[in-house]
Amino acid sequence: MDLDLARELAVTNESKIVLYVIDGLGGLPHPDTGRSELEAADTPHLDRLAAEGICGLTVPVGTGITPGSGPGHLALFGYDPYRYQVGRGVLEALGIDFDLQPQDVAARGNFCTVDGAGRVTDRRAGRISTDTCTELCDLLREIKLPKVDLFVEPVREHRFLLVLRAPGLDGRLSETDPQRLGVEPPLVRALAPEAKGTASPANKFIEEAKRILADHYPANMLLLRGFSKHPSFPHFEDVFRMRAAAVAVYPMYRGLAKLVGMTVLPTGVTLEDELETLQKHWEEFDFFFLHYKRPDAAGEDGDFEGKMGALEAADAVIPALREMHSDVLMVAGDHSTPSALAAHSWHPVPFVLHSAWCRPDRTEEFNELACTAGSLGTFPATDVMPLAMAHARRLTKYGA
Amino acid sequence: MDLDLARELAVTNESKIVLYVIDGLGGLPHPDTGRSELEAADTPHLDRLAAEGICGLTVPVGTGITPGSGPGHLALFGYDPYRYQVGRGVLEALGIDFDLQPQDVAARGNFCTVDGAGRVTDRRAGRISTDTCTELCDLLREIKLPKVDLFVEPVREHRFLLVLRAPGLDGRLSETDPQRLGVEPPLVRALAPEAKGTASPANKFIEEAKRILADHYPANMLLLRGFSKHPSFPHFEDVFRMRAAAVAVYPMYRGLAKLVGMTVLPTGVTLEDELETLQKHWEEFDFFFLHYKRPDAAGEDGDFEGKMGALEAADAVIPALREMHSDVLMVAGDHSTPSALAAHSWHPVPFVLHSAWCRPDRTEEFNELACTAGSLGTFPATDVMPLAMAHARRLTKYGA
Repeated sequence: MDLDLARELAVTNESKIVLYVIDGLGGLPHPDTGRSELEAADTPHLDRLAAEGICGLTVPVGTGITPGSGPGHLALFGYDPYRYQVGRGVLEALGIDFDLQPQDVAARGNFCTVDGAGRVTDRRAGRISTDTCTELCDLLREIKLPKVDLFVEPVREHRFLLVLRAPGLDGRLSETDPQRLGVEPPLVRALAPEAKGTASPANKFIEEAKRILADHYPANMLLLRGFSKHPSFPHFEDVFRMRAAAVAVYPMYRGLAKLVGMTVLPTGVTLEDELETLQKHWEEFDFFFLHYKRPDAAGEDGDFEGKMGALEAADAVIPALREMHSDVLMVAGDHSTPSALAAHSWHPVPFVLHSAWCRPDRTEEFNELACTAGSLGTFPATDVMPLAMAHARRLTKYGA
Repeated sequence: MDLDLARELAVTNESKIVLYVIDGLGGLPHPDTGRSELEAADTPHLDRLAAEGICGLTVPVGTGITPGSGPGHLALFGYDPYRYQVGRGVLEALGIDFDLQPQDVAARGNFCTVDGAGRVTDRRAGRISTDTCTELCDLLREIKLPKVDLFVEPVREHRFLLVLRAPGLDGRLSETDPQRLGVEPPLVRALAPEAKGTASPANKFIEEAKRILADHYPANMLLLRGFSKHPSFPHFEDVFRMRAAAVAVYPMYRGLAKLVGMTVLPTGVTLEDELETLQKHWEEFDFFFLHYKRPDAAGEDGDFEGKMGALEAADAVIPALREMHSDVLMVAGDHSTPSALAAHSWHPVPFVLHSAWCRPDRTEEFNELACTAGSLGTFPATDVMPLAMAHARRLTKYGA
């Protein structure tokens, strides 16, 4: 559903909706047992929810497409991830809780290695430690640019965040990562006439950085990509006419929720803390986005058993969630993260919706194979919000 | 399928297609039994049709969207209900069989109550009786507008139809229903410069009506919305190259069929009458739209058993329909109307297509759950016509 149509059809009532996102939820069978993480894990509460609700598999972005966290979450929030794009620099800023201002231009930086002729020999500078990255960022902060404030923040290993702050900056700039070895990083070019005044301080920064880093082999140069400004998206609360709260531990997910205009609640770091936060603010909001990170982290580590354990922990809070008697309770994932791939993947993601108004299907368990036979079928993740709104009776009739 | 593509691929032959629309077909389980209206009803002929044909569930407009009758039927006729919109005023005119002319601008009217300061206190005037509505419409017909003919027709309770007729009128006008209480109804504004000449007679009508209605508390004022002209849609018969007939009892559905250019056959009021009409005109047409209203009406009344009975009546005519040996026989609904909601709903709608050329699936019964497992899956209602045309061998190859 187009956001304009959602805005047109949305009505308010007393109902409450919970969207519980289990990051990296979907998986693949273990080669020895033929059972996926979800199939192998003991998840009785999710199974019961599946038996009582309606199931399906979400396609986060498109068939065959492996989503990053940004598109994966935006789709669940109802935002077409092709249309609502978040630049890599902005995502990096969200991921470290950097307070990005509307005028800022952010870029993702990589420390890299260059040879005597300035040609890139390692695009990641041998993956230097995060400590080294932090020291180098401190050095780069000394750079002064005329009329532009500069922020350089370490992220992890060879990755850092660069933010330029001044009125009138424009993010339409080419990247300096040549994406291959043996060539010199190109200068930043303006991709629109309005961005010329931003290309020049960016190149000035690179020039100064090159001089400062020269003696810091293997991190003797840097590459910049994903120049972008904080996008201005339609507000979730305006579109869906709900007061919306996000409960998430990691900055990236808090940032994505903030990007669409949700209120981000302060919370402790365990799933139990998150649940307590949700309970505490229950009366103040209509919609809750609850994020649980561990299954994705274990999947990324290729840790099948770790992911099983994380899924069992995700399951354990379902009774408490059900006791809150939301009108709609959904369990979803932003993408699959099969331990077998140790990475995000393109595989559709198990989904269940529970409400008094769902027309039951035959699904008895919550896993990849069982959800394939659910009545929702395999469907775009952007349909999750229309489904939630419909079952909460928050959408009026289309046409007379 | 886009209508332009349909027009390009459509070929003619001797085949006949019947689209039997059971209004409000889909339902929800009864809380006591867990069985839907269709599951509880005894529908042996529909079950046999499902066993011999192919099944699925149609999505009338979009996931989570509850369709009105207009979009629900247009989708079944192959017209994208986002693209082909019918104004509320025009639908109201269709619904009472008013003979709308191409130059007319129609609006839906509500009698309402205002206080001494002209502020709306009840947007429906306490739902006055249809008789009172008829008397008030008679009074409003006395209003004379310079150069514009005026029609005021009672619809039901507080609702009436206003039609302005004159050359050069334009329907792009704002509505006067403030959608909330305690404020004065605004004047009609032109939403396009071309509509200025229509706003002024509309406001003149309102001014006169206010004076006439002043002593008729609670119906002492009126609100107008959905100003619209008869839309000009591609002709069904041109697009699909079939002579098309509609057999429907209620004016709204006859009107929708007329809107796309079908020939509307005069018919009696029972389903048996409708069937007889269809049989009588069998040789004259290639495509038949047969509409049966009762299941929707019972669903809207929240009458589970009444809907069961209506579905059994719908089932009873299937043998007679099959005896006509159409090349394609389809049973569809324009939307679901679960008795549990006593309203139209967003739930997908059972569908079956029977023809010599369908590849059989495993469906053995005709109901919501069984159709979930049908080979057509859950699919857009706009695919119904392409499916019908294909199975009638009326679509030529795409590309060489």
